[in-house]
Amino acid sequence: MGDKEDSKKNLATLLVTCPDRKGLVSALAQTLHGHGANILESVQHVDRHAQRFFQRILFDLTELHTDRLTLERGLGEVTERFEMSTRLVYANKRKRLALFVSKQEHCLYELLLRTRSGELNGDIAIIISNHEDLRPVAEQFGIRYEVFSITAENKSEVEERERTLLEELDVDLVVLTRYMQILSKEFLSAYSGAVINIHHSFLPAFIGGKPYHQAHRRGVKLIGATAHYVTSDLDEGPIIEQDVIRTSHADSVGDLIRKGRHVEKQVLAQAVTWQLEDRILVYDNRTVVLK
Amino acid sequence: MGDKEDSKKNLATLLVTCPDRKGLVSALAQTLHGHGANILESVQHVDRHAQRFFQRILFDLTELHTDRLTLERGLGEVTERFEMSTRLVYANKRKRLALFVSKQEHCLYELLLRTRSGELNGDIAIIISNHEDLRPVAEQFGIRYEVFSITAENKSEVEERERTLLEELDVDLVVLTRYMQILSKEFLSAYSGAVINIHHSFLPAFIGGKPYHQAHRRGVKLIGATAHYVTSDLDEGPIIEQDVIRTSHADSVGDLIRKGRHVEKQVLAQAVTWQLEDRILVYDNRTVVLK
Amino acid sequence: MGDKEDSKKNLATLLVTCPDRKGLVSALAQTLHGHGANILESVQHVDRHAQRFFQRILFDLTELHTDRLTLERGLGEVTERFEMSTRLVYANKRKRLALFVSKQEHCLYELLLRTRSGELNGDIAIIISNHEDLRPVAEQFGIRYEVFSITAENKSEVEERERTLLEELDVDLVVLTRYMQILSKEFLSAYSGAVINIHHSFLPAFIGGKPYHQAHRRGVKLIGATAHYVTSDLDEGPIIEQDVIRTSHADSVGDLIRKGRHVEKQVLAQAVTWQLEDRILVYDNRTVVLK
Amino acid sequence: MGDKEDSKKNLATLLVTCPDRKGLVSALAQTLHGHGANILESVQHVDRHAQRFFQRILFDLTELHTDRLTLERGLGEVTERFEMSTRLVYANKRKRLALFVSKQEHCLYELLLRTRSGELNGDIAIIISNHEDLRPVAEQFGIRYEVFSITAENKSEVEERERTLLEELDVDLVVLTRYMQILSKEFLSAYSGAVINIHHSFLPAFIGGKPYHQAHRRGVKLIGATAHYVTSDLDEGPIIEQDVIRTSHADSVGDLIRKGRHVEKQVLAQAVTWQLEDRILVYDNRTVVLK
Repeated sequence: MGDKEDSKKNLATLLVTCPDRKGLVSALAQTLHGHGANILESVQHVDRHAQRFFQRILFDLTELHTDRLTLERGLGEVTERFEMSTRLVYANKRKRLALFVSKQEHCLYELLLRTRSGELNGDIAIIISNHEDLRPVAEQFGIRYEVFSITAENKSEVEERERTLLEELDVDLVVLTRYMQILSKEFLSAYSGAVINIHHSFLPAFIGGKPYHQAHRRGVKLIGATAHYVTSDLDEGPIIEQDVIRTSHADSVGDLIRKGRHVEKQVLAQAVTWQLEDRILVYDNRTVVLK
Repeated sequence: MGDKEDSKKNLATLLVTCPDRKGLVSALAQTLHGHGANILESVQHVDRHAQRFFQRILFDLTELHTDRLTLERGLGEVTERFEMSTRLVYANKRKRLALFVSKQEHCLYELLLRTRSGELNGDIAIIISNHEDLRPVAEQFGIRYEVFSITAENKSEVEERERTLLEELDVDLVVLTRYMQILSKEFLSAYSGAVINIHHSFLPAFIGGKPYHQAHRRGVKLIGATAHYVTSDLDEGPIIEQDVIRTSHADSVGDLIRKGRHVEKQVLAQAVTWQLEDRILVYDNRTVVLK
Repeated sequence: MGDKEDSKKNLATLLVTCPDRKGLVSALAQTLHGHGANILESVQHVDRHAQRFFQRILFDLTELHTDRLTLERGLGEVTERFEMSTRLVYANKRKRLALFVSKQEHCLYELLLRTRSGELNGDIAIIISNHEDLRPVAEQFGIRYEVFSITAENKSEVEERERTLLEELDVDLVVLTRYMQILSKEFLSAYSGAVINIHHSFLPAFIGGKPYHQAHRRGVKLIGATAHYVTSDLDEGPIIEQDVIRTSHADSVGDLIRKGRHVEKQVLAQAVTWQLEDRILVYDNRTVVLK
Repeated sequence: MGDKEDSKKNLATLLVTCPDRKGLVSALAQTLHGHGANILESVQHVDRHAQRFFQRILFDLTELHTDRLTLERGLGEVTERFEMSTRLVYANKRKRLALFVSKQEHCLYELLLRTRSGELNGDIAIIISNHEDLRPVAEQFGIRYEVFSITAENKSEVEERERTLLEELDVDLVVLTRYMQILSKEFLSAYSGAVINIHHSFLPAFIGGKPYHQAHRRGVKLIGATAHYVTSDLDEGPIIEQDVIRTSHADSVGDLIRKGRHVEKQVLAQAVTWQLEDRILVYDNRTVVLK
């Protein structure tokens, strides 16, 4: 895997969305090729109903004829011509994560272990909690752990301190790993499209609190989990990934909670993986995941 | 399978539910054994929260010392003592089904094919529709097909004729295989616990009409289907079975409809199978499926 | 769906594989664009180990500046330059299928129903069997049904007659829907890459006969089915699709056979769908399915 | 969950297998009831082909009229009469586990975390490894960690020291969490039915070494994992649990290894859970898992 890591350094990802028109694919391919970039992966999607185009291009810069700035200027011309909204990410800058957690450790551990094994392509800069409980876990992995006690009174002031800290730490992505506090509109607008949460139900079923209790009461035969971007509409943000697990009449609420944990952590880790690989575009409150 | 079929003739199933108490299992086992019945399968469930007991016993009557009436009297004493609600079903009486359908054939075909192959332990007595469209399918399988045109004005009168027909045909179970009419309270109370519907969403998500359109708009990553008993609370009846299939941003509403069909037919067929095998008890608007 | 059908007429699919080199994506996109073709979908894959490139491009010919022949000549130049092996398919020519079947109807019905509902993008030209049993099914769907009795003695002569018939009927794809005869090398080489079979196990487990019996004996907790291209190495051809279903100690061989049917028919139908949509490339006895 | 824990102390589980005969269920139920034991759960299975009966009974001893010894004597009479092979386990004695591991941490972590959260009903007495690598993990959880370097020469002597240690620690169950050494016949016969391994393929596919490499070469569309009892026939022991995950042509061997990890840990944890709950009986090299 060492080779892979090294060879990754010269990679870049371009995410594009724009109104669908003829010649988009060709224009981008030609521009990249013209500058000596080598396209390694390309996935596209056209939403025919919305007449909208989406593309992810992974390319290698090793044999670039020009420099990055010139390439960016070249791409800029194309994106302007086609009214594209784009995101260009160089792989040599690893992404930095902040994990927010309360008292439950399962999602936190999953992300810590996947980061250590190299599955998650990012670095965990900090773990933030409203409780002391999980500090030992952070210590095991040598990650900084900060506790911010939140009350109705101090909330906006605390969030401001958190944001200052995240900025200092150059955080790209906030992941709520079963964090039991609601983030304010202000916080979310500062990290728009960069806060991922795991909700312990198969949304839009069982919105709100205690979804496993709700699921038990309704007698469903599958329970699920949903990873989504957090927006100011609680539990209504764009869905990134979902999965379910089979249950039966024999499962108590406690059993649902236990079974659900394993779905939650897998679904959240999958969503974070895609985010770190720059595979997700959002349009009309839905995600396009370009795998 | 011939042997199996023959050997089934002497079987009976006892379904029991009652408040949980000590000695239930022993009392039933002893009574059955005492009359010479041989217990082949026994599954039980205790809902500890509701303090309620559920059991399904499949037994062989071949070596009964007494006759069925005496056995029933013996069981009657036990069930009275423990305040049991019971259902005793002899396997030599095959169940009779009525399938209600509108214009979509996929669920109908699944049940017809599974009945013909012997997977479904019942006979289809009639197919009832509000449209002529699927008459050729019924004819292929040699099943009677009756059309009842329903309008707001004639609804109660038509339902009465339907009920008369179902009674004449000695129907035990009504299955709505994508039937696009709402049955009245009167109809449902006459067939309480004996009308199964397939809803084309993962309930309680996307209650009501056009669930695939709703699912598409919400951008979910899995779609599902739910088989449930029909009650007068639309889409709120006890859930028997559910399953899901993975979707993505690339799926149009049409794709969801196509994918969903295959889940719908499997889920409905599974629910009908359990019903015909007398495996389902309902309590507190939930099902206990004793497999 | 009418619109969709109409709009499909002007579509074409290009399947490409070649040694991986720089500039491939750009060259093809540019050539298509240069002739006025509009790229609707494009999926590619690079096998880094084998240094091999694979791509599927779906494009619209409606606004072609030139004619098809000129376009083909243009593409020909590119494919030669990059040593590409290509397949160009115009959507206005619907594919024609021959289904080979013995006595079991479940896979046959699945393909018949999916064809009728428009899910499968092809026409069933004929059903060929070594038994009379399923003729009524063919008649229900108005499909020609021919019986060829096969013995050790007449096999090569019968296969020749079958091949003549398939040629007369202009058949593109042969699907073995639980066909219990082994096709000869000669037959297979005439229909190389165009014969799909469903094997009732999760290959490579339980190769050969009676896989459900083998699975039962081994006590596996999942059974599966595998759709694959048929080659002269029995059960060793390139795998197109697989799926599994959960089983338990409580399942008899008969139960496995029943459960397996539903997996078999789904897996086979999925593989045939991809084949009809020109999504599959074969390399090194494996399939690349470009979805 | 505190209540649950307390209430568990008075529970016992009886596992039974014997030739199938009339009156078995009744005899056991009556005996337990006669001594004042309250049956909470009862699951049974009859293998009709092998004419063999299997049952698991969970019962509460709180209101026992007699003492445990008298109950055991009572049960002994029944088990002798029906030639039963039985296992009676009292819940107040928590099971003790030894985890054997080499260098990969994912399965080890899963069991450590599930034990800490109370999901696994046992205590980890020791972690044994042939490498130093994972000592820090053991330390994080406060578990003793012993390294035994194994060579061809010292193997039998080392295994003897391991067995002595396991005996001192009163270990009930050995779990191989990706342990890369083969245990000798002697070791296995000392812990017959008490050594569980996770094999990283969907057995019996890809027996032996490097199953993910084998799977990649064969081009399968699902990969899996298998938890099984270890016997002296390598990879041939009774299968306890299996699961799979979808793969595609786009997955390299490294991707398969990464994806597989998550299946491995879930499957192994599930098998260990059932073992600790005394739900597994082995017959004819297959498992009966009484859920």
